[in-house]
Amino acid sequence: MESKRAAAEKAVEYIRNGMIIGLGTGSTAYWAIQKLGINIKDGLRVKAVATSIHTENLAKELKIPLISISEIEEIDITVDGADEVDDEWNLIKGGGGAHLREKIVASMSKELIIVVDESKKVNRLGKFPLPVEIVIFNYENTQKKLSTLGCVPQLRIRDNKPFLTDNGNYIVDCDFGSIGQPRELHTAINSIPGVVENGLFIKMATKVIIGYQDGSVKEQ
Amino acid sequence: MESKRAAAEKAVEYIRNGMIIGLGTGSTAYWAIQKLGINIKDGLRVKAVATSIHTENLAKELKIPLISISEIEEIDITVDGADEVDDEWNLIKGGGGAHLREKIVASMSKELIIVVDESKKVNRLGKFPLPVEIVIFNYENTQKKLSTLGCVPQLRIRDNKPFLTDNGNYIVDCDFGSIGQPRELHTAINSIPGVVENGLFIKMATKVIIGYQDGSVKEQ
Repeated sequence: MESKRAAAEKAVEYIRNGMIIGLGTGSTAYWAIQKLGINIKDGLRVKAVATSIHTENLAKELKIPLISISEIEEIDITVDGADEVDDEWNLIKGGGGAHLREKIVASMSKELIIVVDESKKVNRLGKFPLPVEIVIFNYENTQKKLSTLGCVPQLRIRDNKPFLTDNGNYIVDCDFGSIGQPRELHTAINSIPGVVENGLFIKMATKVIIGYQDGSVKEQ
Repeated sequence: MESKRAAAEKAVEYIRNGMIIGLGTGSTAYWAIQKLGINIKDGLRVKAVATSIHTENLAKELKIPLISISEIEEIDITVDGADEVDDEWNLIKGGGGAHLREKIVASMSKELIIVVDESKKVNRLGKFPLPVEIVIFNYENTQKKLSTLGCVPQLRIRDNKPFLTDNGNYIVDCDFGSIGQPRELHTAINSIPGVVENGLFIKMATKVIIGYQDGSVKEQ
């Protein structure tokens, strides 16, 4: 916990008056949102866009002013977590099932600061199964097409039913073991008809802050 | 009408006993489905998968045996129309808003026979605005991202409301004027977060049958 908190609080130091901020989702982003709430109480003026209903509710509790994404054209800084970060700052996201909205927000952000604890840092992506959002129509065969790219796909189940995203789609968790060429894989997956978006974030992060158990942080 | 009918009926000649057939959507596919109904009445045995509710209802009226796409792994022949066909058999589809399901069916088909009248044949794609299916979340900015690829995007409206696809998404019709590199454009569009699928079918057609006003057909 301390490692996540330390990394998250470091990221919030980059947030300045007047900025539009993207708020990520997950256990590390949680600490960034908490710290942002404190800074706003202390006088910081920003507006924020949430990447999930969960984050939206948390921001409301902390009295962080929210703005609809349809009202803006650009975000100054987004602070978000990740399930894996490699040496080149490529990411796997989507363990929480919100990677489509997170990727849309990230793609509008001038700065994407990724905050993780040291366990998420890897040399090569792929140990964490890659989440892929797919449309429901013909999902069985879309899964089979994903498997031809070299993974073991597993439909995400919650409460004995397929997990439904905010966009009304399914998620397939694709265990690749090791991903040698993330950019090529990203393109190959998104070219499969029926795929909406995958959890690979290629060269989108502009800064990575890693927290360690002793409370220290390392910026990359 | 005669040109569409002639091309469609020619395509149906390739359908043999025992095959699984994909049934397209639109005014040319209509004639193929009509002819298939007659052949089935005359003893042809096939099973069919429909690419839309409209086609499904038509097949039912004509007593064409239907099978769910979830029960099969491959389709022998799909017969479908197109909004444009270029010299290399690349297609623009989606004028009817069903291109995602049509592309999924096409991607499972060993043969994709495209039937069109001569007006659909072009040297280069792009005069017909390219339909792109996008998620509703942040659709305004997704439209703007599409415009940076060199098109004038227009949200498809029906009855004063955004048109909704079978998958609960919007359609943006993107007027490119002329598409020089369809494969590269296909990849670029599908890489935009928020895009579900675009109407470019790259090297998916295995045969193109063009019908002419005098009732003659030309196979390519």
